[in-house]
Amino acid sequence: MRITAINPNTSRAFTDAVAAAAREAAGPGVEIVAVCPAPGQGPDAVESHNDEIAAARAVARLVQEDLASGGSDAYVVACFGDPGLDAARELVDVPVVGIAEAAMHLAAVAGRRFAIITTLSRTIGRAKDLLARYEFEKACAAVHGTEIPVLELERAGADAVAEVLAWCERAVRDDGADVIVLGCAGMAELTTTLRARLDVPVVDGVAAATGVALAMARAGIGTSKRQEYAAPPTREPAALADA
Amino acid sequence: MRITAINPNTSRAFTDAVAAAAREAAGPGVEIVAVCPAPGQGPDAVESHNDEIAAARAVARLVQEDLASGGSDAYVVACFGDPGLDAARELVDVPVVGIAEAAMHLAAVAGRRFAIITTLSRTIGRAKDLLARYEFEKACAAVHGTEIPVLELERAGADAVAEVLAWCERAVRDDGADVIVLGCAGMAELTTTLRARLDVPVVDGVAAATGVALAMARAGIGTSKRQEYAAPPTREPAALADA
Amino acid sequence: MRITAINPNTSRAFTDAVAAAAREAAGPGVEIVAVCPAPGQGPDAVESHNDEIAAARAVARLVQEDLASGGSDAYVVACFGDPGLDAARELVDVPVVGIAEAAMHLAAVAGRRFAIITTLSRTIGRAKDLLARYEFEKACAAVHGTEIPVLELERAGADAVAEVLAWCERAVRDDGADVIVLGCAGMAELTTTLRARLDVPVVDGVAAATGVALAMARAGIGTSKRQEYAAPPTREPAALADA
Amino acid sequence: MRITAINPNTSRAFTDAVAAAAREAAGPGVEIVAVCPAPGQGPDAVESHNDEIAAARAVARLVQEDLASGGSDAYVVACFGDPGLDAARELVDVPVVGIAEAAMHLAAVAGRRFAIITTLSRTIGRAKDLLARYEFEKACAAVHGTEIPVLELERAGADAVAEVLAWCERAVRDDGADVIVLGCAGMAELTTTLRARLDVPVVDGVAAATGVALAMARAGIGTSKRQEYAAPPTREPAALADA
Amino acid sequence: MRITAINPNTSRAFTDAVAAAAREAAGPGVEIVAVCPAPGQGPDAVESHNDEIAAARAVARLVQEDLASGGSDAYVVACFGDPGLDAARELVDVPVVGIAEAAMHLAAVAGRRFAIITTLSRTIGRAKDLLARYEFEKACAAVHGTEIPVLELERAGADAVAEVLAWCERAVRDDGADVIVLGCAGMAELTTTLRARLDVPVVDGVAAATGVALAMARAGIGTSKRQEYAAPPTREPAALADA
Amino acid sequence: MRITAINPNTSRAFTDAVAAAAREAAGPGVEIVAVCPAPGQGPDAVESHNDEIAAARAVARLVQEDLASGGSDAYVVACFGDPGLDAARELVDVPVVGIAEAAMHLAAVAGRRFAIITTLSRTIGRAKDLLARYEFEKACAAVHGTEIPVLELERAGADAVAEVLAWCERAVRDDGADVIVLGCAGMAELTTTLRARLDVPVVDGVAAATGVALAMARAGIGTSKRQEYAAPPTREPAALADA
Repeated sequence: MRITAINPNTSRAFTDAVAAAAREAAGPGVEIVAVCPAPGQGPDAVESHNDEIAAARAVARLVQEDLASGGSDAYVVACFGDPGLDAARELVDVPVVGIAEAAMHLAAVAGRRFAIITTLSRTIGRAKDLLARYEFEKACAAVHGTEIPVLELERAGADAVAEVLAWCERAVRDDGADVIVLGCAGMAELTTTLRARLDVPVVDGVAAATGVALAMARAGIGTSKRQEYAAPPTREPAALADA
Repeated sequence: MRITAINPNTSRAFTDAVAAAAREAAGPGVEIVAVCPAPGQGPDAVESHNDEIAAARAVARLVQEDLASGGSDAYVVACFGDPGLDAARELVDVPVVGIAEAAMHLAAVAGRRFAIITTLSRTIGRAKDLLARYEFEKACAAVHGTEIPVLELERAGADAVAEVLAWCERAVRDDGADVIVLGCAGMAELTTTLRARLDVPVVDGVAAATGVALAMARAGIGTSKRQEYAAPPTREPAALADA
Repeated sequence: MRITAINPNTSRAFTDAVAAAAREAAGPGVEIVAVCPAPGQGPDAVESHNDEIAAARAVARLVQEDLASGGSDAYVVACFGDPGLDAARELVDVPVVGIAEAAMHLAAVAGRRFAIITTLSRTIGRAKDLLARYEFEKACAAVHGTEIPVLELERAGADAVAEVLAWCERAVRDDGADVIVLGCAGMAELTTTLRARLDVPVVDGVAAATGVALAMARAGIGTSKRQEYAAPPTREPAALADA
Repeated sequence: MRITAINPNTSRAFTDAVAAAAREAAGPGVEIVAVCPAPGQGPDAVESHNDEIAAARAVARLVQEDLASGGSDAYVVACFGDPGLDAARELVDVPVVGIAEAAMHLAAVAGRRFAIITTLSRTIGRAKDLLARYEFEKACAAVHGTEIPVLELERAGADAVAEVLAWCERAVRDDGADVIVLGCAGMAELTTTLRARLDVPVVDGVAAATGVALAMARAGIGTSKRQEYAAPPTREPAALADA
Repeated sequence: MRITAINPNTSRAFTDAVAAAAREAAGPGVEIVAVCPAPGQGPDAVESHNDEIAAARAVARLVQEDLASGGSDAYVVACFGDPGLDAARELVDVPVVGIAEAAMHLAAVAGRRFAIITTLSRTIGRAKDLLARYEFEKACAAVHGTEIPVLELERAGADAVAEVLAWCERAVRDDGADVIVLGCAGMAELTTTLRARLDVPVVDGVAAATGVALAMARAGIGTSKRQEYAAPPTREPAALADA
Repeated sequence: MRITAINPNTSRAFTDAVAAAAREAAGPGVEIVAVCPAPGQGPDAVESHNDEIAAARAVARLVQEDLASGGSDAYVVACFGDPGLDAARELVDVPVVGIAEAAMHLAAVAGRRFAIITTLSRTIGRAKDLLARYEFEKACAAVHGTEIPVLELERAGADAVAEVLAWCERAVRDDGADVIVLGCAGMAELTTTLRARLDVPVVDGVAAATGVALAMARAGIGTSKRQEYAAPPTREPAALADA
């Protein structure tokens, strides 16, 4: 069983952290491969709708590359905006799971209502689009931006942890959340620390998506190839053109 | 890692089938225990709201019994009405996953819209309540009753298979479903046959719930114990009284 | 015209209060009978999902008992979680009305948005499930828990009244509610006091359900026996088994 | 206890039928008064948005007239578009109940999903606006127009009955409705005939609204006078001006 | 290209302000005509549901009068409750656009979520009905009443401007609105002042509706005359009767 | 007043048709510029999620290029999937309007419920995501795919017209639509023909978006630059990188 986790930004350190979180969640008998775009082939970080286009393109290309070298049993898209998820599904018939998607699904099982604590407030619109797409609008008590940029999470010291923790506590106390969802792949490393300080479940998307992808692969549930996610028309898939 | 699957009806054959489906979906390193109520301690089958009360009571009691003998890392409620799910969550802090719930979550990842093919039409109301509770109303293209009673599924011959298959095909063709959800734990054994005949993913709830429970347990995501699912008030939990 | 009000907890004082509230709301020409489970045959109070299972079972049994002695023209389920409502509907063809259900219906006619003031916050999840089931999510401005346990309401002195009143005032002022719904049958006795202090309608579920049940019975509107609420399959209805 | 039923069209025969249906539903101890606008003071029938404006104006004026002669304990607006309902609520502090509103509320208690069988298809838009306003969109399985004009219902012979019946049967069979709502006050006289032929509850709005109004009046639940339904500003209420 | 803007209240100064705002938004090649009811033929202001009936009647009559003198290429209903909009649509086959409707549509294009700042809080119910009718419930972050009566807006000095501005700022800061919608035709004159003080788009309904009406007329999109908005039945349209 | 219409596919003939439709809808005093990506810089057609990524990237780049040469007063994205709309909004403070978005907004004003007739059924998922994002789920009666590929529309003879017409007629008759929305920029040229054959309004997205963009620009309503659509972080916007 091989799961490929795709980090659509170009940070190698970020990719290593994704690999570690996925491996911890996978259990025995699963090979985790984590990939990211080469420098200049994807965004440095995904913090805007423009970044997201670049991220989506990187995801589609990396799936294509993985297919060229044999393919995997499932794919995880390790960016909380789930960029390129639909495009990736057109390219394979195995499960493709986004970390926002998976985090929301498991958080909805863990309690009544979750809160998403994310990086910049400007990404809240995208989070709300995903909540609508996946139908978790009632299950979501709140989405809060900490205003900590994605790339600062990596080098986040005690201040960033305190800031994220304060938002989590506020969501539990004031918004009535009984589960916390971390709204960025770069927050995976904070999970343990936050759990120690909070009395509600904390969901990291990378671990969640790895588990969901594995659950689907083992239960024989792939991506439906009927209509929407069928292979693209025979014209050369444009997202993969060289330009 | 130990997962206890609870079949709330009293059929031992049914329970064995649940165990087999759960084991196949669990992968290495997981112990699956399947339990059911003793004769007279639960319903023969769950086909009415009255049955569901008895099923919910059986689920709460079986969780309590499992706790008394050490407890498990996660629980699966193996009946498509998810009876007693909320009550079970009050009793433990590990994941408790219903098979309707899990099937809907994974089906929503596998495609755009799923159809539920179930047993008696009289249970469609309950299925719709669950679709609302878990927020999958847009993701669900249709719910169809085959009018095959639960206990006849076990001894289902070619006729029953043909009937279920016909409903699946109709849902794909007429309702626009691109994923099929089997709406009864007793249909698990049909999954392989149906997959061979259909060109869309087929989701069996027992396999789905096992995978989701495992994903949660490995990702460190338990049941939130804040407010709603906290341990019941210290008065003796009434559902467990002897009467 | 005979209406049977079912209090699913074992408190006789509670049952007497339900009878009084129902009688006051029924008007001339109506016989009100109020019943509750014998000690050990139901929960002391309904404050958890586990309690609710026991309450549902008590409701189904008490309907069955009433049928054995001739039946009634309508039934009221006098517990704000509406436990066993669907099961009771399977057993009869006359109206069966829950107090949460009826309170929400009449509150929606009385104003634009109501607030529910209830006992323990842990029951808010159940209230939200009912708001979704009955489709009053937009009509409900807020649900607040006072944290006063059900059985303390009976012996509630001035402190409890002041606490409930403060929550009502807050809901009107801060949540924009223009109608108050009392979220527990045990609050019926507070209705007069609260009305004297508030300038918005106050809805007690027992009175509301009695009126709705009577309206239906007189207008010739029973419970639909098509499919969902048809009599359960001929296997012995499991909820009523001795075990 | 006095309930005034307002028929906003100018047909005296129609008004008499409303009175009869209301009286039958009210039970002992209730005085029913039925009023309608004088010729030229209201529409002949309510079959368009233009008619509805005239109907709304007639309702407001008739409430004003009733207040001038002492007022009533509750009002029923006996036209399925519920014209002038909000305006009437501004004028009184007792319950004001529309027949569409009440029919939907009681139908939702009687079963899982109702179908509305109405007169002209051009009124379906208004029915859908009311379903949204009262939040019964999921509870409504279908709205069908029979294309029988309102005033022809009065003199409806066997043909009209057969047509309405055919639509009811279709709604039960094809739309999955388990309750029928008659979408015009003029259909009240068909209720008995339809019930004899159908195996699901049939809800007539006039009977339903009478029962709901009575339930509210007896339970002490009036119209909230906070903000929206407070008495209009002291400028002369424009709807009542002579022009 | 001729657009008739209908102010349903009897204020001539208000009507002149509507004309000015519409003209500024129309661009070259468009004739703007602004009309209002004669004194006594409509409400002084629209601040209640009773006023709204009178306003709806005035709108239907003014459309009828305009048709008698040749008709227009599009109509704008210049009152934020969009009174008589559906009735006007029955009378013509060209576009009829309400200012609440148009403001909501353009605000939804301008940003993620808008807030409506209106006059009296008692009109918020009507605004919410329109948000539901036009499906902008998620796009609307908040509706706030300033409690400034409609007719005081005309003579509004610095105090009123400061009050409206304070509510706009609060909506942006506390409700997360990124667009402001002015909830009264009488606020059109404040638009420039508010824009100078706020860093988000400010939408005046009169300008918005003029632009939408023009866009429809030029794109050849009229009012659908199929069923709902077809000409009323041949009985004399009741809203236009003399009484 | 200058409006730039962006066709994200590389077809020059397609771009010319977009320009013609936009010019006809704009009226006097407006300069229309239509642009498309150079060969290899965008997709040949947009018929898959992979195509859409390439289209989004082309849109963002073409806005950037237009800004470099002075910018426009408004932008129209002339592809029914509205690709790159959010990204374009981050780059400017003037209106950016998608043709799906605008067509839905104007269709909602033209009637009660519209049907979308589009090209390949595989794009229906995207259309449904947009209906949810723009909140037109109730206003949309149906979405139908004709299975005519985008590029065949250009050279569409009588057969294609007949096929599209048949779907329009079916939507009006069977789905209850009273307005038709053409679901592809390439269908603009069919508008006149379809209008001649149908008795309901037909909405072409290019004309609609041009009108909406102009309405916003003339009413002084730009894109909100608060948070979500603020200029992207100072890291080089990744979607525009050379790679």
